[in-house]
Amino acid sequence: MRIGIIGAGRISKVHARAVAAHPEAELVLVADPVLSAAQALVAQYGGRATDDPDQVLTGVDIDAVIICSPTTLHAQQVLTAVRAGKPVLCEKPVAATVAEARELEQALAGLDARVMVGFNRRFDPSFAAAKAAALAGKLGEVEQVTITSRDPAAPSKEYIATSGGIFKDMSIHDLDMAQFLIGEIAQLSAVGMNMDPDLVETGDFDGAVVTLVSKTGKVATVINSRHCATGYDQRLEIFGQAGSAVVDNLRPTALSLNTAEYSGAQDPYLDFFLDRYVEAYALELAAFIEAVQAGSPLSPSLHDGVIALELAAAAEQAARTNSTVFLS
Amino acid sequence: MRIGIIGAGRISKVHARAVAAHPEAELVLVADPVLSAAQALVAQYGGRATDDPDQVLTGVDIDAVIICSPTTLHAQQVLTAVRAGKPVLCEKPVAATVAEARELEQALAGLDARVMVGFNRRFDPSFAAAKAAALAGKLGEVEQVTITSRDPAAPSKEYIATSGGIFKDMSIHDLDMAQFLIGEIAQLSAVGMNMDPDLVETGDFDGAVVTLVSKTGKVATVINSRHCATGYDQRLEIFGQAGSAVVDNLRPTALSLNTAEYSGAQDPYLDFFLDRYVEAYALELAAFIEAVQAGSPLSPSLHDGVIALELAAAAEQAARTNSTVFLS
Amino acid sequence: MRIGIIGAGRISKVHARAVAAHPEAELVLVADPVLSAAQALVAQYGGRATDDPDQVLTGVDIDAVIICSPTTLHAQQVLTAVRAGKPVLCEKPVAATVAEARELEQALAGLDARVMVGFNRRFDPSFAAAKAAALAGKLGEVEQVTITSRDPAAPSKEYIATSGGIFKDMSIHDLDMAQFLIGEIAQLSAVGMNMDPDLVETGDFDGAVVTLVSKTGKVATVINSRHCATGYDQRLEIFGQAGSAVVDNLRPTALSLNTAEYSGAQDPYLDFFLDRYVEAYALELAAFIEAVQAGSPLSPSLHDGVIALELAAAAEQAARTNSTVFLS
Amino acid sequence: MRIGIIGAGRISKVHARAVAAHPEAELVLVADPVLSAAQALVAQYGGRATDDPDQVLTGVDIDAVIICSPTTLHAQQVLTAVRAGKPVLCEKPVAATVAEARELEQALAGLDARVMVGFNRRFDPSFAAAKAAALAGKLGEVEQVTITSRDPAAPSKEYIATSGGIFKDMSIHDLDMAQFLIGEIAQLSAVGMNMDPDLVETGDFDGAVVTLVSKTGKVATVINSRHCATGYDQRLEIFGQAGSAVVDNLRPTALSLNTAEYSGAQDPYLDFFLDRYVEAYALELAAFIEAVQAGSPLSPSLHDGVIALELAAAAEQAARTNSTVFLS
Repeated sequence: MRIGIIGAGRISKVHARAVAAHPEAELVLVADPVLSAAQALVAQYGGRATDDPDQVLTGVDIDAVIICSPTTLHAQQVLTAVRAGKPVLCEKPVAATVAEARELEQALAGLDARVMVGFNRRFDPSFAAAKAAALAGKLGEVEQVTITSRDPAAPSKEYIATSGGIFKDMSIHDLDMAQFLIGEIAQLSAVGMNMDPDLVETGDFDGAVVTLVSKTGKVATVINSRHCATGYDQRLEIFGQAGSAVVDNLRPTALSLNTAEYSGAQDPYLDFFLDRYVEAYALELAAFIEAVQAGSPLSPSLHDGVIALELAAAAEQAARTNSTVFLS
Repeated sequence: MRIGIIGAGRISKVHARAVAAHPEAELVLVADPVLSAAQALVAQYGGRATDDPDQVLTGVDIDAVIICSPTTLHAQQVLTAVRAGKPVLCEKPVAATVAEARELEQALAGLDARVMVGFNRRFDPSFAAAKAAALAGKLGEVEQVTITSRDPAAPSKEYIATSGGIFKDMSIHDLDMAQFLIGEIAQLSAVGMNMDPDLVETGDFDGAVVTLVSKTGKVATVINSRHCATGYDQRLEIFGQAGSAVVDNLRPTALSLNTAEYSGAQDPYLDFFLDRYVEAYALELAAFIEAVQAGSPLSPSLHDGVIALELAAAAEQAARTNSTVFLS
Repeated sequence: MRIGIIGAGRISKVHARAVAAHPEAELVLVADPVLSAAQALVAQYGGRATDDPDQVLTGVDIDAVIICSPTTLHAQQVLTAVRAGKPVLCEKPVAATVAEARELEQALAGLDARVMVGFNRRFDPSFAAAKAAALAGKLGEVEQVTITSRDPAAPSKEYIATSGGIFKDMSIHDLDMAQFLIGEIAQLSAVGMNMDPDLVETGDFDGAVVTLVSKTGKVATVINSRHCATGYDQRLEIFGQAGSAVVDNLRPTALSLNTAEYSGAQDPYLDFFLDRYVEAYALELAAFIEAVQAGSPLSPSLHDGVIALELAAAAEQAARTNSTVFLS
Repeated sequence: MRIGIIGAGRISKVHARAVAAHPEAELVLVADPVLSAAQALVAQYGGRATDDPDQVLTGVDIDAVIICSPTTLHAQQVLTAVRAGKPVLCEKPVAATVAEARELEQALAGLDARVMVGFNRRFDPSFAAAKAAALAGKLGEVEQVTITSRDPAAPSKEYIATSGGIFKDMSIHDLDMAQFLIGEIAQLSAVGMNMDPDLVETGDFDGAVVTLVSKTGKVATVINSRHCATGYDQRLEIFGQAGSAVVDNLRPTALSLNTAEYSGAQDPYLDFFLDRYVEAYALELAAFIEAVQAGSPLSPSLHDGVIALELAAAAEQAARTNSTVFLS
């Protein structure tokens, strides 16, 4: 499968690496307005570079498109690619606003759209094993989910300014995981935090706690922070009537140290998503390729992406107004 | 120190055992309307039995009183004991309603009241070590606290009916721990859950998630359940700018098993508070005795108990109304 | 049961505390040539003090004797107590030499001797649970046992000089545990180490590795050190055909810390046997009292003590001669 | 770097995969007497297939050779490749007998031999981090090393018959690790076990415990088994005067389960070396390529391989004769 990538930033590298490593995929084209960035990427992982995204979105030599452009461009690019008959793997969020995301869904309604949204964590072996344990009935009826998700360090203020805010940019992964685990969300409440004084001027929160209730009364709690001294803190607990599944953080090695001061000290957590989710990205791509080839449904779907965006917007509203938001 | 106990139920036994084991304390009197219950207790731990609580509250041979009676009797008994000049260790909650608790505080205002409230978990060596690590600056500025607290199994419907509800009966320990760790609470929101269909008729929740925000913007999340298949699930995370402290569950032994099906499997958690908090109760009593003897302040104070009750009432209100409650 | 203790040193305190805490035992007499030491002990745990051991060994008001005297006195005192009809709990080793131990066994042959040897670790809840898992068949046929046992710090040179050496003084616990877990020992080899230059002049080893083979071909490995920076390192692995049981070290709390330098760091191990084996000593005493009252066999028996001493002597011989020693 | 591989068996696949994944290496030729096996391998990882090993050992289009043939062929093939000027990565053991290995060393003496021996575990990130911690002084003077190494299941009797026995085939990795960690070995003793009755007829042991003493008095203990119900049991402890480093087993995910029966249960260990040491093999190859390109010494060297083989032979002798073997 000949794959083109839009964008040559950090997340594009993750995808380019996964494409290069996949036995049935080939990186053939990378588009970025900064041509040198695209060139650097293809120098490492193969293919041609361009500054014209349309060559990727509509090129005859492209079998599938991975969209890693700025969020504001996602909807239009997805639409263009679908109209050109290309299957699309689009990074989250699917659009900058809920309205835009819904418009995209409507615009795609009649078309034979093949769109998958990049909620890579669904493919993480540990999280997937936790969900599998739940589905296999090992936990009994699932009742409470707790997701702890903290980045090692805040991005730059410039990034934050265009990120759409913590809920759309960061929490959205966890909100998707919440609905993935407890089902359709009926209501949520949220608290936004300003922990780092330097970030207050961004107008964005740098921490959050979101509580989501599903239509069937299950509850998920999402705990977020833009910083974490020990690394990329990514944990999950699924609590059910018969037991619970817990996913701990990963460390680079299986080593622990015992000294006069402490015992059992392991390394800090893997530092960020490039390390922590390297397998998840590879499995995500593999699932995308397999479903495209088989003509089977792509999951997480565009609709999953729209819902996650709605949850992110609702969480922001809840945090800003100190009120519970009911999803329609 | 000659100690009298009001009540001869489950929690009274915990205190009686702690008194018997303390080198400077002696159990001299236990009062319970069911005289045989009181007799059974003193048969094991020493002292006399009576069905008249006033003998404990005002007896000349009593140096200090531990109140383990039904909640509705707490306020009046504390007042009686204080008027008789007795130091009091009163089980939580300090009263059945916030109004009653505030009245008690006012009634005690002029008196030289020596009242400690039984938030035993503050004395748990693991939780205390976590707080000490925070106070010692090892975690940097504390930002987020997560308290998971699940009972192994729900009490009887009869007990639930008179318990005051999950927030006053069970969450109150965690709400106290929250304010103990993040300081005075400014606002909270809560979700109540009905997980066990059999308990719906009680009108009480059997699960809850409470999110508390302190006056300084720190956030604590409390996750509660009336049941937990693996035992008494009592965990804590204090997350700060420079690190985090995590208290895991305790197990009866240091054994783990490896088989063809799994590895590292430990025993289920200690089953309930009698096992899990046996040291905490002993340390609580020791702190009470030491402070009484030294004339130093008793902590947690009656006021801590009133605040915790206010938080519990606020959490109930938040859960019933799906709204954020602001503490005055 | 009225109990007398011979000796008022460190291990005597452990036993005195256990006696005081046992509901059916009472400390009535402590004998030590240093009368003030005996007085200090009874001041804390009750009873009278004397400098005459015979008052304990033969006293009419004594129902059972705990012998914590120097090793060279054990055999004679056990004999005296048995002749006086007293059940005895004797600290390990049962004698200073194998010859002396065998003589004691012979001397006791015709008498109705009730003697238990203080291999307290057999009663440790974690080790006992590991053995119980093996006996319950959870591990399949037991094949390999690994015992790691390291003291936090070496005793004084004076103590070492009279200790009988590392094998009789320290390893003997582990050698007993080995035969307790894999059965009668057919042969062993050993390496002695001199790690701390300061201790070389004692002529004793301060580290050892002993490999024991049972008559049925199972193998136990014992790894010893007189020092361990992280505390009292006491671990066990029982490996069987269907699985393994592992006992990890105990820590004072369930707290772990995560910082920028490390994650999951727990406290150092419990520092020494007073903390690590407090429950084991209490359960050992309880088993002694229960067996004495029931007239049932005392275990570990005097013969277990003799065998352990033989193993210790064989290990010393093996280490000194670099040869395998075959037990007869 | 154009790489040829001799052999197309299980371990060849590991190396072929590593070559294919290395950015500077290319698999160009695979030789196996079973041509179809060689063809299958190159179909997956690239290059040509042949049944003539000399094409690999001396081919002009070959920059380096990886030898994965049966052990009895190693020495001659290494010699041939070296004479043809090829750098060699040779699987362990370097020869079938110590005599043969020494002859090889002598034969290579005058030549500019570039030979590395495949002790892949030295490159395992966890073991390497443990050694690095020791080298960095975090453990103080290293004193005792414990290596536990158990295969998930015994190979076929046919394989065992030609394997050279457990010490040369399996323990040799651990014996190399022992000398890697405590330095040159002065003496060793060993116990061989026959645990599985089905394997007795092979005449080989299926379990072993080896105790090695270095010239400086450090001690390493190696515990081996041909089977382990929970998977591939690969652990290491380095104990030093100031602390210890422990490498635990790896699991496929970071998931643990809590039920009414147990808590903290993780998956069984990774099943075998293909999973457990995949990173180690890649890093081994990278080190080989880097050293070849830089002209720097190859490590582990052929001499390391000879020493490990001597240790394996000595362990066998010690186990067969129940005696301590002194290395010259």
